[in-house]
Amino acid sequence: MSTKKTNSARRSENEGGAATGSGGGVSRRRLIGGAGAAGAAGLVLGAAGGAGGYAATRDDAPTALTTLGSAEEMFHGKHQAGITSPLQARGHLIAFDLAPGAGRKEAAALMRRWSAVAERLMAGRPSGDGAGHDTGVALDAGPSSLTVTFGFGRTFFDRTDLVARRPAGLDPLPAFSSDRLDAKRSNGDLWVQIGSDDALVAFHALRAVQKEAGAAARVRWQMNGFNRTPGATARPMTARNLMGQVDGTGNPKPEDSDFEQRIFVQAGGPEEHAWLQGGSYAVVRRIRMLLDDWEKLTVERQEHVIGRRKADGAPLSGGTETTKMDLDKAGPDGKLLIPDNAHARISTPEKNGGAAMLRRPFSYHDGIADDGTPDAGLLFICWQADPFRGFVPVQRKLDRGDALSPFVRHEASGLFAVPGGMAPGEYVGQRLLES
Amino acid sequence: MSTKKTNSARRSENEGGAATGSGGGVSRRRLIGGAGAAGAAGLVLGAAGGAGGYAATRDDAPTALTTLGSAEEMFHGKHQAGITSPLQARGHLIAFDLAPGAGRKEAAALMRRWSAVAERLMAGRPSGDGAGHDTGVALDAGPSSLTVTFGFGRTFFDRTDLVARRPAGLDPLPAFSSDRLDAKRSNGDLWVQIGSDDALVAFHALRAVQKEAGAAARVRWQMNGFNRTPGATARPMTARNLMGQVDGTGNPKPEDSDFEQRIFVQAGGPEEHAWLQGGSYAVVRRIRMLLDDWEKLTVERQEHVIGRRKADGAPLSGGTETTKMDLDKAGPDGKLLIPDNAHARISTPEKNGGAAMLRRPFSYHDGIADDGTPDAGLLFICWQADPFRGFVPVQRKLDRGDALSPFVRHEASGLFAVPGGMAPGEYVGQRLLES
Repeated sequence: MSTKKTNSARRSENEGGAATGSGGGVSRRRLIGGAGAAGAAGLVLGAAGGAGGYAATRDDAPTALTTLGSAEEMFHGKHQAGITSPLQARGHLIAFDLAPGAGRKEAAALMRRWSAVAERLMAGRPSGDGAGHDTGVALDAGPSSLTVTFGFGRTFFDRTDLVARRPAGLDPLPAFSSDRLDAKRSNGDLWVQIGSDDALVAFHALRAVQKEAGAAARVRWQMNGFNRTPGATARPMTARNLMGQVDGTGNPKPEDSDFEQRIFVQAGGPEEHAWLQGGSYAVVRRIRMLLDDWEKLTVERQEHVIGRRKADGAPLSGGTETTKMDLDKAGPDGKLLIPDNAHARISTPEKNGGAAMLRRPFSYHDGIADDGTPDAGLLFICWQADPFRGFVPVQRKLDRGDALSPFVRHEASGLFAVPGGMAPGEYVGQRLLES
Repeated sequence: MSTKKTNSARRSENEGGAATGSGGGVSRRRLIGGAGAAGAAGLVLGAAGGAGGYAATRDDAPTALTTLGSAEEMFHGKHQAGITSPLQARGHLIAFDLAPGAGRKEAAALMRRWSAVAERLMAGRPSGDGAGHDTGVALDAGPSSLTVTFGFGRTFFDRTDLVARRPAGLDPLPAFSSDRLDAKRSNGDLWVQIGSDDALVAFHALRAVQKEAGAAARVRWQMNGFNRTPGATARPMTARNLMGQVDGTGNPKPEDSDFEQRIFVQAGGPEEHAWLQGGSYAVVRRIRMLLDDWEKLTVERQEHVIGRRKADGAPLSGGTETTKMDLDKAGPDGKLLIPDNAHARISTPEKNGGAAMLRRPFSYHDGIADDGTPDAGLLFICWQADPFRGFVPVQRKLDRGDALSPFVRHEASGLFAVPGGMAPGEYVGQRLLES
């Protein structure tokens, strides 16, 4: 009944900040239209009237407007959604600790509930009867590219008596000299990343995930973020962060020959870690931007800190945003055009043994902090097959000599192993929890 | 040079939660397209390359995507923008107090600076050189329906020695028994409401407004909010709040014969208040929703609290969302279908001497409060020609017997006189400050 088609237009044309296809080369998106969507939207709460909006109005609704709401990310696939999915306008990060007394059995039941609700919500359906009725907050809207992504923290393996199957990739991150980490907002047994192009759809999913946690897990921390709204720019643009910098230019791309092996855990590792094949590691850092200080710099000074032009992200060595940096090029005065301590120079894979990670962040802004400065910055999230060959070496170098350091402060940190995608009928982490 | 056209399609078709036209019947929106827009976008920071995206790509960009970013609200007009403008996806509220020692002269200079920057930003131009360079955060995007709206609180008139010209509409709101107001997040000398369909454009405007305050005013409080993203629903829908309720059904509409006189201050008042003609009063309430409690109710119980169906907002007396409530209709058991204490019954203009206000809220969600409950709810903003004939009588009645009361908590409150729109060359409040 459902009319499904591949959404090759809106999402891929509209977002430049993250990769737009799954590494497996299969599009995992579809658009809902026609009767199938009416069924999905109208099903909620058994409404007879206003909720069945899609079918009643699909002919007179502006096509592209329908597109934003009806764009759907696939729950099933080789990898979990929310890793190579285009950046969404709104995001929630939430970490849980298993409740006292909860162990592997309760964790497995929780992952089964969470998987079921994520699958339903990502398809634009109500959250179901698992732990009560749907809150109705997402009524009228389509899934709006909702993704719900699940990960396990280091402590999860202690709590579930699965230490023998904990991969070395979950070893604690080293301390960095510029860290000012708040332990209460760091790590956690379980991590959920929610993203959607509609803020109410994202909030709806957040509440559903919290509710399904039931007595099995307690919220440890929760953060909100955002990105540009699809359509705010007239053509695909790499994202900007709250410093005004183009951010994400050097990201690995799905069409790179080594994309899959850099970002996702490959087959062939030790048997006890086979459960993570097709998965990835997320490093999450709440990076406060000291905007009052940053904004005092001239644009020229800011560009020297970054090593790229503010207006278009082009390297100071010339060209356009996508031109390769010429790290040796000097100006008429003999000085390097991209300074020695420029952020872009220090973090480039070229200078880090090819260390690559897929950055897929949200900006955050939680109003004004107690000291009167903006509580704003980046919910930095990077994805890699091995955090000790992705995030860690780059951050070590940045920690030693990045010109950007005086303007940022790492306030929280998390490291999570994110299982691969699920086959129909499978729940997230089943291969770990039922083996 | 600039190709301007009336945007009668996207905005009015897409939003139902607030009125979509100015009361004066003149559309105050336009779409940027072609060379004029390229000038606006490309001007920023004098960028030669990537910033001039509109002109370079207008032929290959998807039309509707361009529309969201390029939709522009007019700074000049009969009324300030942001009152009858369609709800935007992202909003910031910020209140300032004049700095110690600052008086009428400093206030006038500040309003002149703020007006200039608001006009530039609403047209998609950089913030200018008033107090430093543009932060660049809005680069690449169009104005995305940005509005910046300014108001004066009661204390402003003391600080500027203008008490004789303070209207009675700024008398303190009465205390309500359900108030749990935080004085530090209430009121203020000056209030600015920022809205945009793009979160980075809104943040950019917020920082520009803060920067232009300079030494003249200090931030008193600041709050962030959101609404549905345009296109998340397939047809015009009244907004939903975080309780999942359709919210805004009974709003006055610009086509109502008495819309102008209910919402905007009319000519013919005392001469000393003539400066407010064409203006309005904003009542701002931060209304926390006790969602953990609310979500425990069955949908049926929630509907009895509200008096309307959750799925589509139709009154429990029958019909569709826009059907008039039948307040006397009883069910087979003889009980009123819309209970005596139902929120919709108590707040209906019919039961409040026709008291009407234009509700134009943002939802808010600031993560999890110290007590573990969601710090979420409604940044309720209502507009009326006289708050003591709009908000106050309705809130008094709600305060006495609203079934919704146990599920909400008013945590902050503000009342602001919002001057009318500006003629070109005029700044906001000039008629007050230079008389």
